[in-house]
Amino acid sequence: MHYQMNQDLLENGDREQILATVAKTFEERVPFNRILGFDIKLQRDGAAKLSFQMRDDLVGNFMRGNLHGGVISSSLDVVGGLVAFVALLDQNLVQLFDEGLERFSKMGTVDLRIDFLRPGLGRSFVATGSILRAGRRIAVARMELHNDSGTLIAVGTGTYSIG
Amino acid sequence: MHYQMNQDLLENGDREQILATVAKTFEERVPFNRILGFDIKLQRDGAAKLSFQMRDDLVGNFMRGNLHGGVISSSLDVVGGLVAFVALLDQNLVQLFDEGLERFSKMGTVDLRIDFLRPGLGRSFVATGSILRAGRRIAVARMELHNDSGTLIAVGTGTYSIG
Amino acid sequence: MHYQMNQDLLENGDREQILATVAKTFEERVPFNRILGFDIKLQRDGAAKLSFQMRDDLVGNFMRGNLHGGVISSSLDVVGGLVAFVALLDQNLVQLFDEGLERFSKMGTVDLRIDFLRPGLGRSFVATGSILRAGRRIAVARMELHNDSGTLIAVGTGTYSIG
Amino acid sequence: MHYQMNQDLLENGDREQILATVAKTFEERVPFNRILGFDIKLQRDGAAKLSFQMRDDLVGNFMRGNLHGGVISSSLDVVGGLVAFVALLDQNLVQLFDEGLERFSKMGTVDLRIDFLRPGLGRSFVATGSILRAGRRIAVARMELHNDSGTLIAVGTGTYSIG
Repeated sequence: MHYQMNQDLLENGDREQILATVAKTFEERVPFNRILGFDIKLQRDGAAKLSFQMRDDLVGNFMRGNLHGGVISSSLDVVGGLVAFVALLDQNLVQLFDEGLERFSKMGTVDLRIDFLRPGLGRSFVATGSILRAGRRIAVARMELHNDSGTLIAVGTGTYSIG
Repeated sequence: MHYQMNQDLLENGDREQILATVAKTFEERVPFNRILGFDIKLQRDGAAKLSFQMRDDLVGNFMRGNLHGGVISSSLDVVGGLVAFVALLDQNLVQLFDEGLERFSKMGTVDLRIDFLRPGLGRSFVATGSILRAGRRIAVARMELHNDSGTLIAVGTGTYSIG
Repeated sequence: MHYQMNQDLLENGDREQILATVAKTFEERVPFNRILGFDIKLQRDGAAKLSFQMRDDLVGNFMRGNLHGGVISSSLDVVGGLVAFVALLDQNLVQLFDEGLERFSKMGTVDLRIDFLRPGLGRSFVATGSILRAGRRIAVARMELHNDSGTLIAVGTGTYSIG
Repeated sequence: MHYQMNQDLLENGDREQILATVAKTFEERVPFNRILGFDIKLQRDGAAKLSFQMRDDLVGNFMRGNLHGGVISSSLDVVGGLVAFVALLDQNLVQLFDEGLERFSKMGTVDLRIDFLRPGLGRSFVATGSILRAGRRIAVARMELHNDSGTLIAVGTGTYSIG
């Protein structure tokens, strides 16, 4: 997906405030994230946590009642994008305030691999991400999705870039 | 995602009727496909076509108004699953009617790679898939997403299996 | 790559002996593994360790002197195949001795993703793998390549199957 | 893999000469490409063709005599890198001669997906690549490997970048 922050960010020099704004922007201003009910937290160290509840309309296999693969892919893509966003932000913090957010408005997923390991069954799910590599323009992240029993449902790897 | 057909299929020996049932099942009985507004067609030769309209709630980047990456991943995963389903069905047609649908109820995506090539802008989108390899239990498919101007938005490759 | 064991394996009922035979077979009887100088160890718990020395003819970038991407891919594919082999073996141990090695002779890599994180510089390298999922016919493995300073050079994910 | 051109390139303003130099550099000055016996051609339109002969030491499965997966991955990575190189060169031709080759010396594969479709059997093999997307710093390529009977052995997708 393609990411974009609002103008508030530029006016908030403080990294912690920036992260809160990023999380809030991803959660409230990305329409499809709202449809999916994603709840997003960004910690000061750049760790991201995306939670969502099981709902009937997120189901793929109507007989087994498990999550649709597209919901799994969406959650991993978004959480990977979040940790990549923070990593690229940290690599570009100085330029960011000189050049404005123009480059960041072109941030997006370059490619994504998802491995579907077990059926997406559970009452709620948590997606987390970590950075494998961050350059100035490209970041690679690894992501995991667990259910509320701690079962590993899916893993992913994503490459993200900024313009 | 995990796929499952209803009991109707077993009672329809005719391949063409089976394909119509599969398309209808994917379109109407998979809750998340309905949320996304996927319209699904399966041709007699096994080719699949998945169409959907742009809608405000499918947006990822609220400033540019393009499709959320998760919608792109979902459409490619589903269309890849469809062509894989048909290919595996054709490899197993005899066994299918001997053993019933038990094995097919465990069909699902093993892994998926998506390359996001251009912003998902347009009024409507069409996802198509083709089979790269089909064995008795594993099929590999390649998928493409175009917008209504014919621009290639994303491509994918998926590995699918049946239990 | 495609894997195959020799007849010795059938005659060795003991799992530990089987693992030693597998490691030796991969190391000594796979011509391209010899070219690359892969040294292979399989532990009783199924963990695999593949080591190799830097050599002039394994270089990709002649000005920087780092490993060729193909050497990196080869090492991750082989170590992923090894842990997948052991995992599938454990899932099929009973059948193996009933049916013989026929199915295992068709074991191979279905697909592979490699992320090249840092230049392959070092005096020696170690590739390791772990299993994310193992069914009766498909196993998914994650792999890592480190140099002798402990730097993470590349990671991979592979899907492996047996006939 | 990481790519690098020699100084000759800078002194050759003509695009056609540049392509000939690139092909020659990949073929003759990349040690591991020589080990694999890769013969490389770059056409004026940027199309790349990498050919190699079957040899005993490129075998993975000693009983079936097919290509090692690492040889397949290597050929697809290199041919994808070649078409990406040319595409990025064309996007940066002006800058290239202003800034020199510094940026190009940091070109490399970011990530790679290989799908192994059929056993690598044949007397000789041809890998080809095409560009899916080329920006100024990132290019995405699709690759295919056929044997001398025209059988599709493997396909791949790679993301490449320049520093």
